[in-house]
Amino acid sequence: MKTYKIALLPGDGIGRDVTAAAWAVLEKAAQSNGFSLDATSYPWSCDYYLENGSMMPADGIETLRSFDAILLGAVGWPAKVPDSVSLHGLLLPIRKAFVQYANIRPHRLLPGVQGPLRSDGFDILCIRENTEGEYSGAGGRVHQGTDNEVAVETSIFTRTGVERILRFGFEKARARSGKLASVTKSNAQKYSMVFWDEITQKLSAEYPDVEVTSYHIDAMAARMVMAPDSLDVVVASNLFGDILTDLGAAIQGGLGFAASANINPDRSAPSMFEPVHGSAPDIAHLGIANPIAAIWSGAMMLEHLGEAATAARVMASIEATTARGIGAIPGKDKTDVITASVLSVLG
Amino acid sequence: MKTYKIALLPGDGIGRDVTAAAWAVLEKAAQSNGFSLDATSYPWSCDYYLENGSMMPADGIETLRSFDAILLGAVGWPAKVPDSVSLHGLLLPIRKAFVQYANIRPHRLLPGVQGPLRSDGFDILCIRENTEGEYSGAGGRVHQGTDNEVAVETSIFTRTGVERILRFGFEKARARSGKLASVTKSNAQKYSMVFWDEITQKLSAEYPDVEVTSYHIDAMAARMVMAPDSLDVVVASNLFGDILTDLGAAIQGGLGFAASANINPDRSAPSMFEPVHGSAPDIAHLGIANPIAAIWSGAMMLEHLGEAATAARVMASIEATTARGIGAIPGKDKTDVITASVLSVLG
Ligand SMILES: CC(C)[C@H](C(=O)O)[C@@H](O)C(=O)O
Ligand SMILES: CC(C)[C@H](C(=O)O)[C@@H](O)C(=O)O
Repeated sequence: MKTYKIALLPGDGIGRDVTAAAWAVLEKAAQSNGFSLDATSYPWSCDYYLENGSMMPADGIETLRSFDAILLGAVGWPAKVPDSVSLHGLLLPIRKAFVQYANIRPHRLLPGVQGPLRSDGFDILCIRENTEGEYSGAGGRVHQGTDNEVAVETSIFTRTGVERILRFGFEKARARSGKLASVTKSNAQKYSMVFWDEITQKLSAEYPDVEVTSYHIDAMAARMVMAPDSLDVVVASNLFGDILTDLGAAIQGGLGFAASANINPDRSAPSMFEPVHGSAPDIAHLGIANPIAAIWSGAMMLEHLGEAATAARVMASIEATTARGIGAIPGKDKTDVITASVLSVLG
Repeated sequence: MKTYKIALLPGDGIGRDVTAAAWAVLEKAAQSNGFSLDATSYPWSCDYYLENGSMMPADGIETLRSFDAILLGAVGWPAKVPDSVSLHGLLLPIRKAFVQYANIRPHRLLPGVQGPLRSDGFDILCIRENTEGEYSGAGGRVHQGTDNEVAVETSIFTRTGVERILRFGFEKARARSGKLASVTKSNAQKYSMVFWDEITQKLSAEYPDVEVTSYHIDAMAARMVMAPDSLDVVVASNLFGDILTDLGAAIQGGLGFAASANINPDRSAPSMFEPVHGSAPDIAHLGIANPIAAIWSGAMMLEHLGEAATAARVMASIEATTARGIGAIPGKDKTDVITASVLSVLG
């Protein structure tokens, strides 16, 4: 039987709750479709940090490298460890080390889910650059604590980094409606964002069948709310993609429904799948986190592993669940009720 | 009779259309309230650039300095002059040179206006830092045009700059509901945004009556759509404020309703008032731009000049107009119909 080796990183807070739920669904889906998933779980988290002084062992990245994929819950618990430490010690290094440069986030309303917008006919695929740009971690502070203090934070964009994510966007657009929206702020950031726009222009010559439009991030944020149905594939930098995908999560009814895949398109290292939501310490382990975003992320993992039919079955089970109203209203149903429904539809 | 000297900068595209409309309203409002507005109009714009090689004369800033306030339409016409040239040659230098560090943008639904959200009970005041941060214009590119090219863009935050905008935010919050939301991305940008969060913490000790909460920009964007009524005063950096205020414009029904004030709180130089929208070349001079954002910005100017009662009368005239459905639906009414209605209510 075909077996995939999966590293489970439940992480912190509700990350643990939703990973357990997603895993139950994925295991069952695999079993009844003739393959198996072999999980190894690692306790890397803020609790781990408090005991060991680091978010993961020194050889953490090397340990993960041998897996076929990584399923992550959520990282961070600010009351225990500052986010700037926990996230830079676990989540962000994995994205970078494994060159998971394409962060894919689908935004559409599941059946039975009511979003905050009056209009609900949209199906947006956000492609977020995931390894450089505004998240380069380059910067510093001088005259710390004095009136004269200055902090700088430098965004670093490389042609390689920008070109590959744009190319990924063009390919996705080609496979969907042929419409690509590229998001910058080149009217205010004249180095990084003008650079991005130039590369977009250059690549567009290679994709004459794709209609690419450049938007400023402010205009795009407004458009996602005023005319989301005018968008299809949206490609953006690390920070802009982060903002737009939380907005995307909002219009699709909330973070409980927002799935994501951190993809290494060359398959030179494992890809990682995680719900967009955070660890939500306030509701951790109360059994009330919505596992749908995590299960959906798991479906994206199956698809990436080449098990598209099984991925589609998981998605159909999620959709049948929300269509019945289960898990469709944030906060209404318990984690295990939603999970049980997905499992039972799965048959 | 008390006279205020106003510099008019209609700028490009619909900037000219809406400035004319706003001026008609402001003049009439002044007349019937015992003061006068003395306008000097400057043609600085992309057309000016094409003729003169710069967006304004070398002594442009000095020329503007002697005015009591500046009323601006919109700057930019990318088909004529790249935005990175036009905006860095006119709009952004004024904000910086005159230390207009507080960009104030109110977001609420005018009567009769239907926004894109199902929920419409919100009244948000965004305070955007306007002189530094992500708009510092610091950066560069190496190995231009090669595969090895790298572009960097550096955000520069000074303690002076961050402290004064946060203080402005705390004061506004104190004058309103006592609730302040401060927006950063300190989980990913560990120099600039952690710095901002630290200063927020420090200042909060001075404002025990203000309840301040820090949000990440992604979470705030989602919140503005999912629970806008949970927000009151929101303070953010230059870029984050830019994004949030276009989102604010969207939830208030569109850019035709979004007003703004670029304030120099120390009054050491003139403040500038402008609609949030751009120059919209595609509809320039067709007589169909909505002048409400510009008129509202004019009301903010009157308030800043100390003519609060007249400002309130202008706002009431806008509200009576939209309540009748005039100007309430984007694209429905012509500029002069909307302006005529505001003028006639003004009496
Ligand atoms: C936790 C945080 C650093 C992260 C990000 O901004 O990338 C999260 O918001 C996300 O979108 O995955
Ligand atoms: C035109 C552009 C540079 C400007 C900005 O980003 O500041 C505009 O979007 C605004 O919000 O006033």
